[in-house]
Amino acid sequence: MISFESDYTTGAHQAILEAFVKTNLEPLSGYGTDKYCESAVAKIKAACGGNPDVYFLTGGTQTNQIVIDTILAPYEGVISAVTGHVNAHEAGAIEYTGHKVIELPGHAGKLDAGEVDAYITTFFADANHEHMVFPGLVYISYPTEYGTLYSKAELTALSEVCKKHGIPLYMDGARLGYGLASKECDLTLPEIASLTDVFYIGGTKVGALCGEAVVFTKGNMPKHFATRVKQHGAMLAKGRLLGVQFDTLFTDDLYMNISRHAIDMAEKLKELFTKKGYDFFLKSPTNQQFIILENAKLHELSEKVRFSFWEKADENHTVVRFATSWSTTDEDLKELEEIM
Amino acid sequence: MISFESDYTTGAHQAILEAFVKTNLEPLSGYGTDKYCESAVAKIKAACGGNPDVYFLTGGTQTNQIVIDTILAPYEGVISAVTGHVNAHEAGAIEYTGHKVIELPGHAGKLDAGEVDAYITTFFADANHEHMVFPGLVYISYPTEYGTLYSKAELTALSEVCKKHGIPLYMDGARLGYGLASKECDLTLPEIASLTDVFYIGGTKVGALCGEAVVFTKGNMPKHFATRVKQHGAMLAKGRLLGVQFDTLFTDDLYMNISRHAIDMAEKLKELFTKKGYDFFLKSPTNQQFIILENAKLHELSEKVRFSFWEKADENHTVVRFATSWSTTDEDLKELEEIM
Amino acid sequence: MISFESDYTTGAHQAILEAFVKTNLEPLSGYGTDKYCESAVAKIKAACGGNPDVYFLTGGTQTNQIVIDTILAPYEGVISAVTGHVNAHEAGAIEYTGHKVIELPGHAGKLDAGEVDAYITTFFADANHEHMVFPGLVYISYPTEYGTLYSKAELTALSEVCKKHGIPLYMDGARLGYGLASKECDLTLPEIASLTDVFYIGGTKVGALCGEAVVFTKGNMPKHFATRVKQHGAMLAKGRLLGVQFDTLFTDDLYMNISRHAIDMAEKLKELFTKKGYDFFLKSPTNQQFIILENAKLHELSEKVRFSFWEKADENHTVVRFATSWSTTDEDLKELEEIM
Amino acid sequence: MISFESDYTTGAHQAILEAFVKTNLEPLSGYGTDKYCESAVAKIKAACGGNPDVYFLTGGTQTNQIVIDTILAPYEGVISAVTGHVNAHEAGAIEYTGHKVIELPGHAGKLDAGEVDAYITTFFADANHEHMVFPGLVYISYPTEYGTLYSKAELTALSEVCKKHGIPLYMDGARLGYGLASKECDLTLPEIASLTDVFYIGGTKVGALCGEAVVFTKGNMPKHFATRVKQHGAMLAKGRLLGVQFDTLFTDDLYMNISRHAIDMAEKLKELFTKKGYDFFLKSPTNQQFIILENAKLHELSEKVRFSFWEKADENHTVVRFATSWSTTDEDLKELEEIM
Repeated sequence: MISFESDYTTGAHQAILEAFVKTNLEPLSGYGTDKYCESAVAKIKAACGGNPDVYFLTGGTQTNQIVIDTILAPYEGVISAVTGHVNAHEAGAIEYTGHKVIELPGHAGKLDAGEVDAYITTFFADANHEHMVFPGLVYISYPTEYGTLYSKAELTALSEVCKKHGIPLYMDGARLGYGLASKECDLTLPEIASLTDVFYIGGTKVGALCGEAVVFTKGNMPKHFATRVKQHGAMLAKGRLLGVQFDTLFTDDLYMNISRHAIDMAEKLKELFTKKGYDFFLKSPTNQQFIILENAKLHELSEKVRFSFWEKADENHTVVRFATSWSTTDEDLKELEEIM
Repeated sequence: MISFESDYTTGAHQAILEAFVKTNLEPLSGYGTDKYCESAVAKIKAACGGNPDVYFLTGGTQTNQIVIDTILAPYEGVISAVTGHVNAHEAGAIEYTGHKVIELPGHAGKLDAGEVDAYITTFFADANHEHMVFPGLVYISYPTEYGTLYSKAELTALSEVCKKHGIPLYMDGARLGYGLASKECDLTLPEIASLTDVFYIGGTKVGALCGEAVVFTKGNMPKHFATRVKQHGAMLAKGRLLGVQFDTLFTDDLYMNISRHAIDMAEKLKELFTKKGYDFFLKSPTNQQFIILENAKLHELSEKVRFSFWEKADENHTVVRFATSWSTTDEDLKELEEIM
Repeated sequence: MISFESDYTTGAHQAILEAFVKTNLEPLSGYGTDKYCESAVAKIKAACGGNPDVYFLTGGTQTNQIVIDTILAPYEGVISAVTGHVNAHEAGAIEYTGHKVIELPGHAGKLDAGEVDAYITTFFADANHEHMVFPGLVYISYPTEYGTLYSKAELTALSEVCKKHGIPLYMDGARLGYGLASKECDLTLPEIASLTDVFYIGGTKVGALCGEAVVFTKGNMPKHFATRVKQHGAMLAKGRLLGVQFDTLFTDDLYMNISRHAIDMAEKLKELFTKKGYDFFLKSPTNQQFIILENAKLHELSEKVRFSFWEKADENHTVVRFATSWSTTDEDLKELEEIM
Repeated sequence: MISFESDYTTGAHQAILEAFVKTNLEPLSGYGTDKYCESAVAKIKAACGGNPDVYFLTGGTQTNQIVIDTILAPYEGVISAVTGHVNAHEAGAIEYTGHKVIELPGHAGKLDAGEVDAYITTFFADANHEHMVFPGLVYISYPTEYGTLYSKAELTALSEVCKKHGIPLYMDGARLGYGLASKECDLTLPEIASLTDVFYIGGTKVGALCGEAVVFTKGNMPKHFATRVKQHGAMLAKGRLLGVQFDTLFTDDLYMNISRHAIDMAEKLKELFTKKGYDFFLKSPTNQQFIILENAKLHELSEKVRFSFWEKADENHTVVRFATSWSTTDEDLKELEEIM
């Protein structure tokens, strides 16, 4: 059965598998100190501009947990949209490390710079704020959980609010490639590196078997970061697993090429749904499309194609998600068209 | 330069890479619910006997952290030899989750059943034990950090002490294959499953790129274990990464075949060191060999072959470790012989 | 200067000081095992009815932290109104123990039973709830942070929702006496004990120097609770400090007598504000009154009487809180009247 | 029955109770911001010399937990003698906050400066120390759990080792008064303040109902310390409870006067045991005396006087502890003499 269930249903890009095979028997030092990690770091630095610190981790929740826990002081929490992944879908991984997720409203998944400013300003104006959780980081995702994007103006506004208050800005880039490749994107990777204090370049959902590249953009990698990664149980003995993958993804623009492919497929998918008269819950500019289905139609379709339940719209309708990825093919779309 | 530095310097067994390639484009459900995970679980159950619960995690420290944290009640700690990996070399990953590591003496890396019994008995006899950390789990490794093995009699004695006190026994099997393949081993996998309450079958050091298979042997998998794994940041979106590897390792006895190969290489390595008149710090029955080198010799050798520093023996001598693995070749040994 | 700043500005009721003096030189065993603790427990059991477990702790945040952390499983969070003390004003003490505070809307400080039911029902209906924080406890306060009270019908509805889902209900009774003594209260202490699974009887704000009595009403005191209290740093060597106070408060109905006094004073305070034409933000039925002041008036009054800033109403008005307590006198009110 | 069970069996010094009575109805601001806290801080600063920061907490385990957790970086642990209170008798309160207690040998309860130096030096010389818990604080107690004292030379040596490695030194002074009042003590309070980075002046065991005064001696009070105290559930609404007590204890040298009295009583106790031919396990210079009793004698005595079990000496003998305190009287000793 064809699948638009998510962007992590297939394995890795062919070039990554080839790189595994090619490097397999080279004896390499452990824990991320090998030459492929070094090479991948250098390539990512070059792609981001400036001189950031780069560190490879295995998955998205792990990355969010470690970045947030190590950036925050113990008396601080992280501001997130109520719909933010760290707030809603990580099983309390942030709170597990002792930090509150401070909820602000989400606007199609996005934080509003003015609301963030107002929250922080009000917090510090409160005479009793020593009895409260200090805001210590602002968490956003790009694209958001709804596939939406911050415009350059929006991200700049958020970045300025953060700078004004001395609070760092963290971008969850689990699907960063699909954001950057979107036709609506008016940001470059160096601009993101400049406007945020830390972000990560998602690999798991963009062609890797696993792996996320954390980029600390302002000389702000937490002290003894490797020890803290180890303490969180997140250090791999065979760091090459991550190094080889990111080295491949950042060779010959592979990361952006496969991202652009997924976006092309998503645009075709949108056309298809539009043509066939489906209703969009949200016409996202990235690789996730949210469609409203009548429950009978949902049942019918689910026997022929895999997609994700998102949320109930009303008694008779359901929001579902169709996702494309680096591995979606024209054949997949054709097959989908036939069964719609 | 040839390397005996560790058993995690090379990639994965060829069969694993082939399985990645073969399964790569199949769309599979995420988070460990795919058919390769299911198949791997079934094969591991069959290999262990009984009807254990099996769960795949990514690395050793992560596995120790999650198993220990989820098995223990919040007021409990874990008993370990002072030299145990969880006590000495995991950056405080156990304490990070709120639990004390209760140190008992190590005897060539092993706990003594009588000493464990005495400790627990004395603890509960102390009228003030409500002010102390309750022993809630006994941690051992097989092979130990010194490459040594518990005999069946020793493991049975430990198991009985644990049963007597109602405290589970946990075996860290990061190198389990190399233990089972040792000529000194008088235990089978089903016997280990029977004598312990939870153990893990190490993949990272035995032919996988990453991955450890946790086996809960007594219907004792902690409630909502998947949620707790997610909470620890340890759940992979592409669970296939682990499923495909363990499915391969437990097909056609691959796990034991490559383990036996490493032990054969280690036996030849021992002969070589003996023949050349080197002093052993510990003549281990598994894949790690601990040699005492004069510091001048150490310096000389380290220019020609990679091995690990272990500890200072005295002012003029150093203990070093040479490890074989599934990927060690006769050519490696030959080259070593020439430069010794 | 007279003070209506809070209900914890004065020391302890005279009878408590006398009890300290009278019992001072008796040698007593430590850690809450002395006869005054035992006597106080017996009296509180009698007052609550049934056969609850009672444990004394020192302060409110400490009590909330320990009760919530020890009742919850590690994968669970606590549901609270967004305005709940644990969510807003305890510096993240709940999250510090690893648990999320799950925010639901507050209605004058109260949770709505229907909204709680809907949240829990939706949670368990979500196929992905294993990736989310399980609701494991419902937190309410009585009176709430706004001085409001749940009616018997409202508390019964909440209690039934909790029972239906198998989730315990916890009542923060920092000001419980002032709730029970309110003219609007239609609940008795035994009814509260019956409708909740755990609650605490606040001492600090109701005549004690410190101390809260936790009541586990359903045989559900967490295992090795004393050890967990010690582990949280909350066990007093001289447990008599708490035992003597609660033994006194629960002798000759002192706890309720002083609570009724505070409510009488609050009713007179309300009359006074009404008579003088002040605007109420909320006409609370308990000992805290929330008044809206013009900022000029606020400034003028604050030079003559102490009260608390609550929140900005608009640019020109501010919500302030006047609190009575067991120690408020008619003279205080008279003096207030003169300066209003 | 007379009691030498511990130094926390009686209430508070008479002067403290009088101060409670005298100040009881003064309306004071909460959370430790009242004038008695301020006055107590000023007096303790004067007694210590220099310009330390002083903060009041409620009990010993709480104080150890908060000081250690807030001083340490997240990747650090605290060095303690194996017999240290934080290692053995606080129910894992340190590990609960995520930090390892690094055990070094105890010598009659004391750490050896040379061994501490060797441990830290070896740690940083280990190429793999990023995989281990960094030593971040040295914990000692004065007097120790065995009633013994560091000489000025010993404390100076420890202090120098700590300075050399840039690791702070923390002294648990639960019984500090009894140490300073000992005839063997060659240290002053200002010297202790100078040689340590943080210490606490114990109140609970030296005449208060509860309370410990933490002294940060080097401008090193952790940032937002009040917030972290609140987060640990340790902030009292009625901070006056601690302020009034310490203000009294540091007026007219009361703290040292009652400490000297306890030591006088302890010296008489020692004479008594010596005269009657009892065997000492340890002839401590402070208020705790450790006696070896034949089990039959232990049984006989325990029917007439209360004391503490310490540990088994052998099959037929037991080590017990007799403690004096500020409230021990000559009559107590006389009665003891008659029943020995």
